[in-house]
Amino acid sequence: MDVEALITEVRQVVSRLHGELVRYGLVAWTGGNVSGRVPGADLFVIKPSGVSYDDLAPGNMVVCGLDGKVVAGSPGSDRSPSSDTAAHAYVYRHMPEVGGIVHTHSPYAVAWASRGEEIPCVITAMADEFGGPIPVGPLAVIGDESIGRGIVQTLRGHRSRAVLMQNHGPFTIGVNATDAVKAAVMLEDVARTVHIARQGGKVLPIPRDLIDRLYERYQNVYGQIDEAQRMS
Amino acid sequence: MDVEALITEVRQVVSRLHGELVRYGLVAWTGGNVSGRVPGADLFVIKPSGVSYDDLAPGNMVVCGLDGKVVAGSPGSDRSPSSDTAAHAYVYRHMPEVGGIVHTHSPYAVAWASRGEEIPCVITAMADEFGGPIPVGPLAVIGDESIGRGIVQTLRGHRSRAVLMQNHGPFTIGVNATDAVKAAVMLEDVARTVHIARQGGKVLPIPRDLIDRLYERYQNVYGQIDEAQRMS
Amino acid sequence: MDVEALITEVRQVVSRLHGELVRYGLVAWTGGNVSGRVPGADLFVIKPSGVSYDDLAPGNMVVCGLDGKVVAGSPGSDRSPSSDTAAHAYVYRHMPEVGGIVHTHSPYAVAWASRGEEIPCVITAMADEFGGPIPVGPLAVIGDESIGRGIVQTLRGHRSRAVLMQNHGPFTIGVNATDAVKAAVMLEDVARTVHIARQGGKVLPIPRDLIDRLYERYQNVYGQIDEAQRMS
Amino acid sequence: MDVEALITEVRQVVSRLHGELVRYGLVAWTGGNVSGRVPGADLFVIKPSGVSYDDLAPGNMVVCGLDGKVVAGSPGSDRSPSSDTAAHAYVYRHMPEVGGIVHTHSPYAVAWASRGEEIPCVITAMADEFGGPIPVGPLAVIGDESIGRGIVQTLRGHRSRAVLMQNHGPFTIGVNATDAVKAAVMLEDVARTVHIARQGGKVLPIPRDLIDRLYERYQNVYGQIDEAQRMS
Repeated sequence: MDVEALITEVRQVVSRLHGELVRYGLVAWTGGNVSGRVPGADLFVIKPSGVSYDDLAPGNMVVCGLDGKVVAGSPGSDRSPSSDTAAHAYVYRHMPEVGGIVHTHSPYAVAWASRGEEIPCVITAMADEFGGPIPVGPLAVIGDESIGRGIVQTLRGHRSRAVLMQNHGPFTIGVNATDAVKAAVMLEDVARTVHIARQGGKVLPIPRDLIDRLYERYQNVYGQIDEAQRMS
Repeated sequence: MDVEALITEVRQVVSRLHGELVRYGLVAWTGGNVSGRVPGADLFVIKPSGVSYDDLAPGNMVVCGLDGKVVAGSPGSDRSPSSDTAAHAYVYRHMPEVGGIVHTHSPYAVAWASRGEEIPCVITAMADEFGGPIPVGPLAVIGDESIGRGIVQTLRGHRSRAVLMQNHGPFTIGVNATDAVKAAVMLEDVARTVHIARQGGKVLPIPRDLIDRLYERYQNVYGQIDEAQRMS
Repeated sequence: MDVEALITEVRQVVSRLHGELVRYGLVAWTGGNVSGRVPGADLFVIKPSGVSYDDLAPGNMVVCGLDGKVVAGSPGSDRSPSSDTAAHAYVYRHMPEVGGIVHTHSPYAVAWASRGEEIPCVITAMADEFGGPIPVGPLAVIGDESIGRGIVQTLRGHRSRAVLMQNHGPFTIGVNATDAVKAAVMLEDVARTVHIARQGGKVLPIPRDLIDRLYERYQNVYGQIDEAQRMS
Repeated sequence: MDVEALITEVRQVVSRLHGELVRYGLVAWTGGNVSGRVPGADLFVIKPSGVSYDDLAPGNMVVCGLDGKVVAGSPGSDRSPSSDTAAHAYVYRHMPEVGGIVHTHSPYAVAWASRGEEIPCVITAMADEFGGPIPVGPLAVIGDESIGRGIVQTLRGHRSRAVLMQNHGPFTIGVNATDAVKAAVMLEDVARTVHIARQGGKVLPIPRDLIDRLYERYQNVYGQIDEAQRMS
């Protein structure tokens, strides 16, 4: 496929995935954003800033270079991209294995973030999906580079595809935009469940070697493996 | 535009915005209300009292003067306006910069209100949107003027567009009705998140100067700026 | 209207109102039930037992006499009525002013009920709607008469249209079925809000005379008054 | 009916029932699974692994033998069955009275499971449906047989149709798939309600003999009894 066809496809996927943030209650009003890297090009597609979720469509997604600047002349280029675009761009520049990024203010994840507390791995679904606890990143909301740098420093070499930026909220990464959205959905699910669990009393730890085995198994055997899924 | 055309437009906007209160779970049964000022006229449009959200339409919105009296002869004038109309009118009379007002009994905001406790600013989204803590207004539900007076006394000169009236619930204001509804949605979101955060342990404060910088940035650069948005 | 026309109308209203229980999350699976008295006749209409909410329709509502027995030969009479029919019948026999009854296992109301704890009146919406705290009724689930008797003993002469039957759940009453459903919706709303409020710290009481004034005002002036509303 | 017709019917029922898991908020992303035994055959029908709930249809349900192996050549046999298939198969082999099985990570049930704490029977709906507390099964997520064995050891001879597998989540069983889904829905409902109840203070026990009488009554008299229901 040529680059234009790939951009068209990523626009459709990224636009549609924003609907999943709404479906799972991860966002309010115009908050939150999804981006997806254009395979083989130094480009990514991201949500416009401050637009209602009802009005999002492939044609108003914004195409940016890895410097975070809007690509002039493409559809949507009359819009400002998400105010978190610089953070997305930083991650794409420094983590070439990342193909999709999601940011939300989902309430239970933000609650842990506002205490600066990592989420302990006490449920097997969390071991499957994240391979251990969800780490906390720095309070870093001053300049544009600082958020991206905090994400990369926390997640590079870490099993978790999710980071809780202190007092701010979660960012998740994935091999593509769908994978990053899945991580955002599962993160809020475990943030909520572990919160509820702890409110009721003492949670039981899962032994480290069992966490390792769960993670290995899930990463290798779960799901249907076909080309369509790898793409989307 | 002449006044009649503006009234027609505000009726449509205010009617539609009530759907956002339902969508975000801020209201139960016939509770809650949105109003919008008619630009350039001493009039505002408000929800009728005790009517099901399913039955709200532009034609049954009620037009009132700034004294809170229904304008005779206009569509909807056979209906009683919201039982909170006097409070809305008071705010429009005393705060000319306010173009929209929302009142709900959204559960987490009411929970803080029933303790008479302001919501501390411990998440960056709250700094962005409200510029600091959400203040508490007086227990003032006796006469008609007292609620409006309590709102104005609390919010005048305050960064926050939201006030928690003690034992009662939130009122939010905005430059127009959409902006006030956004404030109501974001208020419940932060009321819930900070509640959950504190249930789990000690929350981390955000330094005051960082709150200031976040608020300045968000008020000035966020979102798409065009005339359609300023209107709605 | 003759009795048959009234029965047809009450069937429609009662069938439709079950949709409100679903909309507000008050019921799970086939739990919960609404009934409505047929004006001027010793009859009431109630939900069939164990039927999915998706399948409820005016034609499968069951018509019963005030002894709780199904009226033979009417549509739906091949169905068993709700397993709570005896309790509804008892209330209709002993409280002639009651025109509608609702029973649910809505989660926050059941939580208070399982502690046998009345809900304190700390929010003004509760003063408006219920005129004070929500009382607790006895643990009474053995014979058929005992639940109905517990409801009547608790609510007769009480301002509240809602009772929390201990370890069981809420019953609400009203001048008609719509009014009883409104009470069920508002009850769960205040049960949830006061629970959340108390989890966060000490709630502030509302002075008794203010509760009285709020209740008087709301019962007399709120809403649109027309015949259609009185009927439904 | 011949076996092919029965398989077709179970495919339809099992596919449709997955929609109930979504409706009641018991699952996130592609998690959770329902299976149903094919009456009179050593076969069961189960969800494919890692497929979106939006895309589930009778034709992509997977037919397995009681050894957990996919039946070659049938529709859906090009898909991997749910990663929990071995556990379902083990239960069908060892509990011939079981006609349906459900597994979810519903949040309140998982919260109790992560503390390894049984849910006490303090609400009458729980006595009706489960006849007592919901038991906890072992932390057993290593080999394929261990989960199934833990379910069978915990539920065999127990009134409860639900087990909380420690640090993992609930499995429910039933006389057919619909019955098992009902148990999953009611389990999350009581897990949530009892959690909320206990957060607010001390819950009141229900005397053991009353639990017994409630359970007996509900199992014998509740609902409409007809062949259609027994089948589905």
